[in-house]
Amino acid sequence: VGPPVFTSDKLYDDQPPTGVVTGLAWTQMGGTTMYVESVLEAPLLPTSQQSFKRTGMLGEVMKESTVIAYTFAKMFVASHFPDNRFFDHARIHMHCPEGATPKDGPSAGVTISTSLLSLALNRVVDPGYAMTGEITVTGRILRIGGLREKTVAAKRAGAKTVFFPAGNLADWEALPENIKEGIEGVPCNFYSDIFNRCFAGVSQEEGNKVW
Amino acid sequence: VGPPVFTSDKLYDDQPPTGVVTGLAWTQMGGTTMYVESVLEAPLLPTSQQSFKRTGMLGEVMKESTVIAYTFAKMFVASHFPDNRFFDHARIHMHCPEGATPKDGPSAGVTISTSLLSLALNRVVDPGYAMTGEITVTGRILRIGGLREKTVAAKRAGAKTVFFPAGNLADWEALPENIKEGIEGVPCNFYSDIFNRCFAGVSQEEGNKVW
Amino acid sequence: VGPPVFTSDKLYDDQPPTGVVTGLAWTQMGGTTMYVESVLEAPLLPTSQQSFKRTGMLGEVMKESTVIAYTFAKMFVASHFPDNRFFDHARIHMHCPEGATPKDGPSAGVTISTSLLSLALNRVVDPGYAMTGEITVTGRILRIGGLREKTVAAKRAGAKTVFFPAGNLADWEALPENIKEGIEGVPCNFYSDIFNRCFAGVSQEEGNKVW
Repeated sequence: VGPPVFTSDKLYDDQPPTGVVTGLAWTQMGGTTMYVESVLEAPLLPTSQQSFKRTGMLGEVMKESTVIAYTFAKMFVASHFPDNRFFDHARIHMHCPEGATPKDGPSAGVTISTSLLSLALNRVVDPGYAMTGEITVTGRILRIGGLREKTVAAKRAGAKTVFFPAGNLADWEALPENIKEGIEGVPCNFYSDIFNRCFAGVSQEEGNKVW
Repeated sequence: VGPPVFTSDKLYDDQPPTGVVTGLAWTQMGGTTMYVESVLEAPLLPTSQQSFKRTGMLGEVMKESTVIAYTFAKMFVASHFPDNRFFDHARIHMHCPEGATPKDGPSAGVTISTSLLSLALNRVVDPGYAMTGEITVTGRILRIGGLREKTVAAKRAGAKTVFFPAGNLADWEALPENIKEGIEGVPCNFYSDIFNRCFAGVSQEEGNKVW
Repeated sequence: VGPPVFTSDKLYDDQPPTGVVTGLAWTQMGGTTMYVESVLEAPLLPTSQQSFKRTGMLGEVMKESTVIAYTFAKMFVASHFPDNRFFDHARIHMHCPEGATPKDGPSAGVTISTSLLSLALNRVVDPGYAMTGEITVTGRILRIGGLREKTVAAKRAGAKTVFFPAGNLADWEALPENIKEGIEGVPCNFYSDIFNRCFAGVSQEEGNKVW
């Protein structure tokens, strides 16, 4: 039932590496998945200085989104896992495939934040999770556009859960049942609504000790 | 009575974090709330160097406003709370949601100053307060445009008090009673007129010891 | 007699802080006051390094004027008050309200110089003084345009003395008596002509010891 899963919409067939998160974008051709990948570009050493590099043909608004997500992720770790030294020393490279496609807009904020936290906590994010939402530096999640097209794209890529801003709840409720069938929608006001699902098993002790 | 509160105009339902202040902007579509959020982007350590990052698609005039507000806030703390070392070591990231909306003009000066002082004094600003006004480096508050539209927006977002420049007093007095009903207007000549309300309970001892 | 004082043209009702000086500008709408404010952006410490930040939507010529005035003020203090260490350690932020109005031209040179010297000597400048004139790095004061409109603006803002370049003396003498009535004009060849009035009471001992 439902449209078939096109492999072109799935970047990783099985379990993705840490730092990889499925985002959702709206384009003139409809919705599409937009993966965010974060990796260390150098081994994590006590002497290395933090840095943050971004690639993927990102526009001005999306570049600012990465700066916002980076600040948010650092302070989220500092307040929840104060002994986790990851961001002090991590030289991070974040990339959004596909490299030839220009990307812009603020709605990848939650995806970028989750990608950075996946690295910082060394935890894989369930590839069945897809997400969209602007994030503020305090972790508030703001409305986005194109929820219908994004949900279709999430389903086509095999996602079973879509995280979206609570400000889009009316849009979600207005979606036809056949689109929502087989997919769980999770409205989110604050980033903690995403964190508590994506990183459910991370105890404070584990998050503190991982790096 | 009056228009209903649209949640889309309220960024935080309950108590916002420190560093979050409700500003007011004028757009071609009318007035709107424009929040300013300031957070630390790194834990406050005796060894860390001050820095100040800004995001939110800010235009040239508004970028200068942030520089003016930063200078003003630093010297206000230095003269009123000389033992408060916050700004010496704080790595601050100030953001104006929503990230895709270009913003400009000088009238967020008082909002930015208040956001920075909220962080420096570790005090939440009453979310019922909304404000607009250009600030100079000495703390003088200068006239702004669009007070009528901004007041309507403040009310729609549930504000109960609007701080505006004393230079706009004639504009305030010319507002129809039905707009002003249920909202207190506070004309301000100097930043101290705002400070004494927003941070009323902060004793010199407390402000000195907070960081 | 004469036009009334419009409060919108007066930035400070009573005694302004040190570093605030009333300048005069010519615009397509006529003359206007243009205040220059200089403040310390950090407490003056023996270990702090000098710096000079400028805001207020300044054009290229006016930015150079601030550099010229900064050099002139530093050397004026070095030669007249050799023990005054202010500029060695002062982190100065100079701002020209109003922040949304682009400003340019060389005629604020004397105003900027006076603003910096007011800080360096910790002396308030009489708010009844208004001034206009290009300055060179040696302190020579050069002709400016729009003296008539500037004088009208100075009077409207409540000034009682206008300092202008001696090169504009013919312009001053050609002004109708009703414009000059109640206002003293001081033609200036060198900055000392302004200094000796604005900082008349500063003895060498006092200037040396203030910081």
